[in-house]
Amino acid sequence: MAVTDTALDNAHVPGAVTALLAEYAHCIDDDRIEEWPGLFTDPCLYRITTRDNHARGFPASIMMCDSRGMLMDRVVSVRTANVFEPHRYRHIVSCLQVVESGEASWRLRSNYLVTRTMRDGTMAVFSTGEYQDRIVLDEGEPRFNERIVICDHGMINNLIALPL
Amino acid sequence: MAVTDTALDNAHVPGAVTALLAEYAHCIDDDRIEEWPGLFTDPCLYRITTRDNHARGFPASIMMCDSRGMLMDRVVSVRTANVFEPHRYRHIVSCLQVVESGEASWRLRSNYLVTRTMRDGTMAVFSTGEYQDRIVLDEGEPRFNERIVICDHGMINNLIALPL
Amino acid sequence: MAVTDTALDNAHVPGAVTALLAEYAHCIDDDRIEEWPGLFTDPCLYRITTRDNHARGFPASIMMCDSRGMLMDRVVSVRTANVFEPHRYRHIVSCLQVVESGEASWRLRSNYLVTRTMRDGTMAVFSTGEYQDRIVLDEGEPRFNERIVICDHGMINNLIALPL
Repeated sequence: MAVTDTALDNAHVPGAVTALLAEYAHCIDDDRIEEWPGLFTDPCLYRITTRDNHARGFPASIMMCDSRGMLMDRVVSVRTANVFEPHRYRHIVSCLQVVESGEASWRLRSNYLVTRTMRDGTMAVFSTGEYQDRIVLDEGEPRFNERIVICDHGMINNLIALPL
Repeated sequence: MAVTDTALDNAHVPGAVTALLAEYAHCIDDDRIEEWPGLFTDPCLYRITTRDNHARGFPASIMMCDSRGMLMDRVVSVRTANVFEPHRYRHIVSCLQVVESGEASWRLRSNYLVTRTMRDGTMAVFSTGEYQDRIVLDEGEPRFNERIVICDHGMINNLIALPL
Repeated sequence: MAVTDTALDNAHVPGAVTALLAEYAHCIDDDRIEEWPGLFTDPCLYRITTRDNHARGFPASIMMCDSRGMLMDRVVSVRTANVFEPHRYRHIVSCLQVVESGEASWRLRSNYLVTRTMRDGTMAVFSTGEYQDRIVLDEGEPRFNERIVICDHGMINNLIALPL
């Protein structure tokens, strides 16, 4: 029996959906964060939390935005506050899992690893964890209706400037 | 000439097969290791070895299981022995290569990187290496008939509690 | 509205093209670097540079080869010079983005992370950055016409022996 049944073959999502995941990463890694809010619907939910908080159902977040305006506030604060040493991220994303797949909406999970490179060239693995996404078609384009970032560790609260 | 020939386009495998690779990673990273043996056929071959041992054809393994029962023993030992400090893994898997592709069986290779996060939040890259898989259709579902984990280094013998 | 429009679904490239990206990584990680020049067209452009140099349009490169002969020189130097401590890489590649997609040519971007494992088992994240590729059909097979490796940091000039 060949695995061509629809039932078995449901791991596929449209290329435009996986392209959104890639553009999210490149948008931040390229330092084009002004374009980052446009990857979300309005309203939306963008939340950074820890595995422990998430597992216990705690609402506490390291970062939480529920509209494009709040996401843009975040961008402005990165661009103007400058209280942190300049740095850049590099995203690695894999193990994409399709939790629900509809005509115009998808629930996805993936693993991420983000490295951080400082101005002086020092580089380290900064954060690992999981993305839990709800992606919907919005004006014909896939956008994040929800992106929950679940960090494996909780020691980075004060260190997060750029979005993960 | 467009690359639509079957000959050139053989890198595709059914979505259910790549979904198995993702579920393997999430199953461990989610701490749902009781479900891990069910991803294998029975009998099966699960083996962790090092690049040096593998290259020289040495049969020595860091871990070896050839049935679901042995995989389940491993799970029980993780859950009850508790001689190690609690930790969690995060899998990153990429560079999937299709070595052989049949109607109901596939040989795949991929690269992995696993980070380990301790209870206190300390996180490090724990292991990198290669998966060499034989996946078959088993009761209509893709399962690992073989998963050989070839670690880039051999210094982790005593440290492996969770499966890689 | 389902995302099946060609316009939205343009993130797909032929499997043979993504297979080339995987083979590039495995070729180096397997220590089959003699096969590495054959993954490029002749002439070609293989260049390793830094994010800062690339952003400012500086032509300076950490490594630059514009023919298969030059790539092969590089291989010979790795095999014979032996002025460096033996080590192996492990490539992780993700966030593939299709910049341009034609019938026989594609511009792609992806993020990479390379770990390096020394003879004594010491392992570290060695380099992260971005690949910017132009891949073309060459004698019916996809090959790199250009691969620009843009490192996130510039401190590895003297340390690069194997290609990234």
